[in-house]
Amino acid sequence: MTTSPALVAVDWGTTSFRLWLLSRDGTVLAEHRSQEGMSEVAARGFETVLKDHLQTLSVPSDLPVVICGMAGSRQGWVEAGYIDTPADVTTIGASATVVPDTARQIIIIPGLAVRSESEPDVMRGEETQLLGAHLEMPGGERYCMPGTHSKWVSMNGPTVTGFETFMTGELFSALSGKTILTHSTDGEGKVDANDPAFLTGVRDGWARPEKTTHHLFSIRAGQLLYNHPADENRARLSGLLIGAEFAGARVRGDEQIGLVASGALQRLYQAALLACGVKVRNLDADVAVRRGLMESWQRFATTSGDRTHP
Amino acid sequence: MTTSPALVAVDWGTTSFRLWLLSRDGTVLAEHRSQEGMSEVAARGFETVLKDHLQTLSVPSDLPVVICGMAGSRQGWVEAGYIDTPADVTTIGASATVVPDTARQIIIIPGLAVRSESEPDVMRGEETQLLGAHLEMPGGERYCMPGTHSKWVSMNGPTVTGFETFMTGELFSALSGKTILTHSTDGEGKVDANDPAFLTGVRDGWARPEKTTHHLFSIRAGQLLYNHPADENRARLSGLLIGAEFAGARVRGDEQIGLVASGALQRLYQAALLACGVKVRNLDADVAVRRGLMESWQRFATTSGDRTHP
Repeated sequence: MTTSPALVAVDWGTTSFRLWLLSRDGTVLAEHRSQEGMSEVAARGFETVLKDHLQTLSVPSDLPVVICGMAGSRQGWVEAGYIDTPADVTTIGASATVVPDTARQIIIIPGLAVRSESEPDVMRGEETQLLGAHLEMPGGERYCMPGTHSKWVSMNGPTVTGFETFMTGELFSALSGKTILTHSTDGEGKVDANDPAFLTGVRDGWARPEKTTHHLFSIRAGQLLYNHPADENRARLSGLLIGAEFAGARVRGDEQIGLVASGALQRLYQAALLACGVKVRNLDADVAVRRGLMESWQRFATTSGDRTHP
Repeated sequence: MTTSPALVAVDWGTTSFRLWLLSRDGTVLAEHRSQEGMSEVAARGFETVLKDHLQTLSVPSDLPVVICGMAGSRQGWVEAGYIDTPADVTTIGASATVVPDTARQIIIIPGLAVRSESEPDVMRGEETQLLGAHLEMPGGERYCMPGTHSKWVSMNGPTVTGFETFMTGELFSALSGKTILTHSTDGEGKVDANDPAFLTGVRDGWARPEKTTHHLFSIRAGQLLYNHPADENRARLSGLLIGAEFAGARVRGDEQIGLVASGALQRLYQAALLACGVKVRNLDADVAVRRGLMESWQRFATTSGDRTHP
């Protein structure tokens, strides 16, 4: 069994960079993370930043690099476009964009788009996680990928039939950091997935999403009238927004959902889904994106006739 | 007919100060406005700030002052408390708080509170507008007072049976100023009440409020995929949030609503309500608050036995 490096897999988002050195069978040989923001990266230049990261891990100069995420956006390194839904997620690697004029081969995975005049939507990075999820947990019909912009995806076999994005994470940040709710929710503690205020918030948001912007103000009123503490208020805020997301995604208590997430977000969404009666299949988001990147590379190499690499 | 000044009426909010010199019959003899924020005022001292404004208008030293708004909050000048609903709005003046140790008589109107463990709510300032609206447009059962924190009030005669606050205005500011939607909505133009994007947004938010946080992201996607312009995006954002507020307030197409508002906000909400089939009775918010302040003073003077003033 070989453990020599075969591929550099990169998930390059707006505020985070994750790089893995993978063997041919997907084993992680080395890992590197940073929190450089996209604007910082743009100023230094994507190629320079990537080169620095590769040097840190002494990556052999002939290894190819496959990238997903915001590096492929219009404001990113090289625009990698979108594939319109319905789309076969197993083919995204075949449509990868080759970064021109680089010493090693570097490709960027395209995003997916719902091209609808009334309700357009886009994803970039999650399509690669989704490919990994489809391979690791085959047969799933619905996937939830929580985050700053949570994605809910409907699948039919390998085909993405549609998806919807909810601004849940960004709303939580904006509301808790930039509004009257800042005074009611400030503090350092993470929201606890078992906090009754979180779970009540989830159920309220799910059952009565039309009341969300009222329930939000009610958090402030509860602090004024009842001295509800900041931890409880933050938990309720998080729960209300996740519950409203579930309502928008038409979550039903009798369905099964593939949850692609990591860490604190995984715990919150799992607890929230279970509280709604949903059966959850879990897949770590890092495992999903690595599998998707490896698979995309193989598809790209096959399609482009490049068989010198894995 | 006398036109000598009888009362100083002040609406003192978080970011605005409005003062009117009124005759006994409510005629406006002079007006003064400023945009001092509450933190600025707190630093200089409420009494000093008020004295400066009164000097600007050469207000006689024996005229009483009646104040509503955030000056009566815990972080304000003197805390004026809340009256719990159900509450007779005509009696708010009788519960006014007297500011101690001042040369002239100064009173602050209390707010109203919905004291409910599950959905508490508060208003401060709007109760005085509401009193004015009840007197100017008697017989109304529902009032909408749009703003940073929009209030929807149910009345039975003079009794406020309940109310709900929606964070519509503050959400618009936070979303258009502090999120990914900033890029899609930036610009100086005001939202036009007749913009089809605004009215479509209202109807979408009203009909499918559970989709709001998805529709928000869709604005960004529409810019990426279709180059939808910022004016249109800002109009849709405003419409979606107002429509979701209508859904939360259970607006029905066959009802009549008293709209207490001024300027651009009045035009937007009127157009939005009409688009939903609602009959609108309009009252200017300044007229409403002046009438409420004058009425509150008279009630206070009667109750406290002070008959030396109007």
